[in-house]
Amino acid sequence: MILAVCLNPALDVTYDVPGLEVGAAQRVRRVTRRAGGKGVNVASVLHAQGTQVIVTGPIGGSIGRELVTDLDDRGIAHDLLRIGGSTRQTVTVFSDDSATVLNEPGPLLTEAEWSAFTDRFADLAQRADLVTISGSLPGGVPAGAYAELIGIAHRQDTVVILDCEGEALVEALHAAPDIVKINEHEAASTAEIETDSVEGVFAAAEELHVQGAAEVVITRGASGVVARTHDGRFVGTTMRTVSGNPTGAGDAFTAGLAATTGAASPWRERLRRASAWAAGAVATSVAGEIDATVARDPESSSIVEEYEAS
Amino acid sequence: MILAVCLNPALDVTYDVPGLEVGAAQRVRRVTRRAGGKGVNVASVLHAQGTQVIVTGPIGGSIGRELVTDLDDRGIAHDLLRIGGSTRQTVTVFSDDSATVLNEPGPLLTEAEWSAFTDRFADLAQRADLVTISGSLPGGVPAGAYAELIGIAHRQDTVVILDCEGEALVEALHAAPDIVKINEHEAASTAEIETDSVEGVFAAAEELHVQGAAEVVITRGASGVVARTHDGRFVGTTMRTVSGNPTGAGDAFTAGLAATTGAASPWRERLRRASAWAAGAVATSVAGEIDATVARDPESSSIVEEYEAS
Repeated sequence: MILAVCLNPALDVTYDVPGLEVGAAQRVRRVTRRAGGKGVNVASVLHAQGTQVIVTGPIGGSIGRELVTDLDDRGIAHDLLRIGGSTRQTVTVFSDDSATVLNEPGPLLTEAEWSAFTDRFADLAQRADLVTISGSLPGGVPAGAYAELIGIAHRQDTVVILDCEGEALVEALHAAPDIVKINEHEAASTAEIETDSVEGVFAAAEELHVQGAAEVVITRGASGVVARTHDGRFVGTTMRTVSGNPTGAGDAFTAGLAATTGAASPWRERLRRASAWAAGAVATSVAGEIDATVARDPESSSIVEEYEAS
Repeated sequence: MILAVCLNPALDVTYDVPGLEVGAAQRVRRVTRRAGGKGVNVASVLHAQGTQVIVTGPIGGSIGRELVTDLDDRGIAHDLLRIGGSTRQTVTVFSDDSATVLNEPGPLLTEAEWSAFTDRFADLAQRADLVTISGSLPGGVPAGAYAELIGIAHRQDTVVILDCEGEALVEALHAAPDIVKINEHEAASTAEIETDSVEGVFAAAEELHVQGAAEVVITRGASGVVARTHDGRFVGTTMRTVSGNPTGAGDAFTAGLAATTGAASPWRERLRRASAWAAGAVATSVAGEIDATVARDPESSSIVEEYEAS
């Protein structure tokens, strides 16, 4: 079983509006409401691809109840901690060709709630083959929250894939996560190295490794992926450009890495699979879903080669 | 008891955003969530001013449950009909000096639900001294829905104040509502008469009277109010300009008219009171609330004079 951690889940509300004008009132044509947050998206993709997964995180208020109902409706297993605060919603307004996103701040956790969550996590991580940790930290938890979770997982010999940014990432690196999967912008900011060339991205990956990440995978959007692993350094190049909605592509990539960990797949194969799932996510309009036809065809999506510095 | 009808209630969500940029992601600084919809705002103002009021309408889904909880928290009495569809939310984004509003379409009512609502309404209207009907019609109900409710109220000798626009208003006029309270833009559109002069507004009021409204009150924002009543024609002029948020001012005006109906107040007094409540609503940032200091002082808010055509 894979355990997907989502400390800051959200109900993702999307509006279809003929044209968004600031300062005016507009009628929404179509509304969708759906459980979201990066960890929920990872779990959603894994579940859709037939991998056993449980999503965990704190949940509260009436939006939290609606989120749980949606997980149940979609058949995604969960083990969530009820908190006093209210789960946030995000509102994405699709108008013409643009997406305008409003991110609510989310609830504050009390010290007692965070302590209760770490106990819950320890129980779940013991039963898990692998843990994914994705997204931002909610208010009230310590900056080293992810380091704490990684420490708990490692004491039970459970592998952790981490996808976060900023101070949460910097602090988490101290706990030596097994795989850090981030995008090139996050890598540039944390490593303080320019990532506009493949050499730069590898230099950033090396720096993140020095800071504590055992293996590092850096996604570059349509330009592909770069990986610094125990088996060597790899460059993945996108062969087929998929147009669509990139929201959730990074989470589908993480899901692809998670799904291939236990199978002792070589890194070349893992990166191909994860890239194909990310392409499948771009091909759908909804975060947490992937287009099965695109995802099923890693060969035509990308080629992955060992990298030799020139 | 006053019965406030709200066929299309909403949970009003407001976001405080540093600057709203279309096509970008932005963090919301502050979130408020509050029961709304024009009929709920009318009930809220009446309740705050010490008048006994019950709000009725259809309600459903998790947003509907949250709306009911908010009414309970605020002590506003309600008798709502549970429906299968989900109550809508509206999102208002306050950024810099602008308010951007996203109005969800709201649920569809089934024929059986509309029939159950009219039964419920008949019971409630029998116990009411006055009925206010405010706002848009939800999907699924007949265009003549308000005419139907007015007919039921009149068979029980209950007076109706109506505030709506478009086809819902045109159809409702056939049932001879006791007072139609609309703004000058809605009046111009329904009467097909220009309302850019006091004469024009009175001509529109006369046309609405001919079409069925026993008495007509047309609000003109900061320019005041015009009334065509059984006691004559009146013009109210705003004496003190209040700056603030005009959302909900029309509902506070309706509440002011409703609160003075049973008291056999002369029209001059009613219009002064309603204008003061509307000014009190502008002075607060939240629809459904009024500034008590402003509202308590009708004399300094406006003067109301009998109108003699020149």
